[in-house]
Amino acid sequence: MNSIRRLEEIFAHFPGIGPRQARRFVYYLLGRSPAAVKELVELIQEVKSSTAECQVCHRFFTGNEQADKTPTCNICADASRDHSILMVVARDSDFEIVEKSGAFKGLYFILGGTVPILDKEPEKRIRLKALLQRIDADKPAEVILSLNATPDGENTADLVKNSIKGTKVTILGRGLSTGAELEYVDSDTIKNALQNRR
Amino acid sequence: MNSIRRLEEIFAHFPGIGPRQARRFVYYLLGRSPAAVKELVELIQEVKSSTAECQVCHRFFTGNEQADKTPTCNICADASRDHSILMVVARDSDFEIVEKSGAFKGLYFILGGTVPILDKEPEKRIRLKALLQRIDADKPAEVILSLNATPDGENTADLVKNSIKGTKVTILGRGLSTGAELEYVDSDTIKNALQNRR
Amino acid sequence: MNSIRRLEEIFAHFPGIGPRQARRFVYYLLGRSPAAVKELVELIQEVKSSTAECQVCHRFFTGNEQADKTPTCNICADASRDHSILMVVARDSDFEIVEKSGAFKGLYFILGGTVPILDKEPEKRIRLKALLQRIDADKPAEVILSLNATPDGENTADLVKNSIKGTKVTILGRGLSTGAELEYVDSDTIKNALQNRR
Amino acid sequence: MNSIRRLEEIFAHFPGIGPRQARRFVYYLLGRSPAAVKELVELIQEVKSSTAECQVCHRFFTGNEQADKTPTCNICADASRDHSILMVVARDSDFEIVEKSGAFKGLYFILGGTVPILDKEPEKRIRLKALLQRIDADKPAEVILSLNATPDGENTADLVKNSIKGTKVTILGRGLSTGAELEYVDSDTIKNALQNRR
Repeated sequence: MNSIRRLEEIFAHFPGIGPRQARRFVYYLLGRSPAAVKELVELIQEVKSSTAECQVCHRFFTGNEQADKTPTCNICADASRDHSILMVVARDSDFEIVEKSGAFKGLYFILGGTVPILDKEPEKRIRLKALLQRIDADKPAEVILSLNATPDGENTADLVKNSIKGTKVTILGRGLSTGAELEYVDSDTIKNALQNRR
Repeated sequence: MNSIRRLEEIFAHFPGIGPRQARRFVYYLLGRSPAAVKELVELIQEVKSSTAECQVCHRFFTGNEQADKTPTCNICADASRDHSILMVVARDSDFEIVEKSGAFKGLYFILGGTVPILDKEPEKRIRLKALLQRIDADKPAEVILSLNATPDGENTADLVKNSIKGTKVTILGRGLSTGAELEYVDSDTIKNALQNRR
Repeated sequence: MNSIRRLEEIFAHFPGIGPRQARRFVYYLLGRSPAAVKELVELIQEVKSSTAECQVCHRFFTGNEQADKTPTCNICADASRDHSILMVVARDSDFEIVEKSGAFKGLYFILGGTVPILDKEPEKRIRLKALLQRIDADKPAEVILSLNATPDGENTADLVKNSIKGTKVTILGRGLSTGAELEYVDSDTIKNALQNRR
Repeated sequence: MNSIRRLEEIFAHFPGIGPRQARRFVYYLLGRSPAAVKELVELIQEVKSSTAECQVCHRFFTGNEQADKTPTCNICADASRDHSILMVVARDSDFEIVEKSGAFKGLYFILGGTVPILDKEPEKRIRLKALLQRIDADKPAEVILSLNATPDGENTADLVKNSIKGTKVTILGRGLSTGAELEYVDSDTIKNALQNRR
C-alpha cells in the first residue's frame, strides 16, 4: 500500500471519521504549506512527549519537566483542593467537562472507560483494581461516581459501587438536564425529577 | 382555491407538517376507501363533541354525558388522589407523560402554554389568573411546577413562582436525564447533578 | 378503545406519522375552534366526494359535475395536448411534479405504485394490464417511463418495458440531478453523465 | 497557549471538524502507543515530501524519484490514454471519483476550486490561465467540464466555457442521479431527464 492510502487508513481510525473524510484530510494536508504541516507534525510530537499519564488519577497532563520525573498532575498535587472527595469519571473528556463546570473542588480518578452490560472481563476495560488501591491508600470520605446516565454508565456505576467496601459512594443526581422537555423524557427521569424537586 | 388546495393548506398547519407532507396526506385520503374516510370524519367529530375542557384543571377529557353537564374530569373528581398537591404543567401532552410515569398521585393544572422571555403579555399565553384563583380556593400544601428545562419553561416557572404568595412552590429537580452523557451536558446540569447526588 | 385513542391510531397511519405526532394532531384539533374543525371535516368530505379517479389515466382529479358522469380528467380530455406520447408514472405526486415542470405536454398513466425486486405478484401492485390495454387502444408513438432512479423504480421500469411489445419505450435520462456533487455520486451516474454530455 | 490547545486548534481546521471532535482527536492520540503516533507523524511527512503537484494536470500524485525531477503524473505520462479529450474537474477528490468510475480514459486538469457567483477575482480561485495555456498547447478535440451541478459549479462552468475559444466544450449531462426520486427533484432535472431520455 502506498503512503497516501496508509495515511487515509490511519485517519479513518480517528474517532468519528469515515474513509471519505479521511481522504479529505489527506488532500487538506497536501494543500497546506510545508510550514503548516511541519507545525502539525511538531505539535503532535510535542504533545505526545510532553504529556504524561498522572500516576495518581491517570489523566493525561502536560508539564515538561515534571512529566519526566514525578508524573503527578497539577490537580493531584494541589493542596488547596479537597482531598477528602474523590470523583470517578470514565474518560479525560468527562474530567474536563466537570472541571470546566467549576462545581467540583475535590480530586479525580479516570477509570479509562466503561463496562458494557454482560461484559465478562471488566478489569480489562476499567482501572478497577487501581481505583480500589487508591481508595484504600487515601481513604476519602466520599467517592462520587460521575458516569453517563446510559446503560453502560449505569452498569459501570453498579459494578464499581459494589466493589467499594467501607466508603461512602454516591452517584450523580438524576432529573431534567438543561434543555430537557417533559414530552421527550422517560418515566424514570420524571420520577427522579419529582423526588429531587426543590 | 379549490378544495384540495385548501385541505392541503389546513394539513400544513398541523404540528410539524410542511406543504409536501400535507399534500401526501390528501393523496393518502384520496386513496383510502370511502368507509375509512367516513370513520376518520366521524371520529374527528365525535372526539371534538365528546371532549370537554375540565373546568378545574383545564385539560381535555372524554366522557360523553358528564362532559355536557358538569365539566370536571375523572382525575379532578377522584377522591382517592392527593388533593393537597397540585402539579402545574404547560400542556395536555406534558400531563400525559407525568400521568403515564405513575410517579404522581396529586392533582393537575394545565397552564395552556409557556411564556417566552421578554414577552409582555404573559396572561395571554398562560392561565395564570385561573391558577391563582384555584390555589386560593383549594389551598394546596404544595404546588409543583413541572415545566420544561428550557429557557421558555424556566421563564414561565419564574413568573408563576413569583405570582404565588403564601404557598410552597417547588420545581422539578435537575440532573442527568436518562441517557444523558457527561460530554454533552452543560455546566448547570453538572452542578445540579452534583448537588442532587445520592 | 375510546375515540381519542382510535383517532390517534388513524392519524398514526398517515404517511410519515408516528404515535407521538398522531397524539399531537389530536390535541391540536381539540385546541382548534369548532368552526375550524367543521371546515376540516367538510373539506375532507368534499375532497373525497368531488374527486374521482380518471378512468383513462387513473389519477385523482376534482371536477364536481364531470366527476359524477364521465370520469375523464381535464388532461386526458384536453385535445391540445400531444396524444401521441404517453408518460407512465408511479403515483399522483409524481404526475404533479412532472406537470409542474412544464416540460411535458403529452398524456399520463398512473401505475399506482412500484414493484419491489423479487416481488412475485406485480399485478397486485401496479396497473400493468390496464396500461397494456390503453397502449393497445391508443397506440401512442412513444411511452416514457418516468420512474424513480431507485432499485424499485428500475425494477418496475424493466418489468413494464418488457411487457410492452411493438411500441417505442423510453426511460428518463440519467446524469447529475440539480444540486448533485461529483464527490457524492456513484460510478453509474458518472458514466451516464459522461454519455449524456452536451 | 499550550501545545494541546494549539493542536486542538489545528485539528479544528481540518475539513468538517469542530472544536469538540478536535479535542477527541488529541485524546485519541494521547491514548495511542508511541509507535502508532510515530507512524502517523512519519506518514504525514512522507506523504507531504513524496507527493508532488503534477505540472501538467495539477493534481497531487505520489512517486518518489519522479516527483523530484519531472513532476508529471502517471496519467499525464500514460501514452495509452486518449490525449485528445481533456476533462476539467474542480478538485483532486473529483478526479478520483471520475477515475474510479472507469468511464473516462482521457486526460485531466484540476481547476483547484470553483468560483462562487458574483466573485470578482475568479483567477484567484481557479487555474483558468493555466487551463487556457494547456488547451492552447495541447489542442484537445474536446474539453469536458465535470463540475458539480450546484450554483458554484454551474457558475464556474459558464465562466470556463466562455473563456475557451475555438475548442469544443461539453458539460456533464443532467438527469436523474442514481437513487433520485421524482418527488424530490426540481423542474430543471425533470426537463433535462426528459430531453436525455433513451
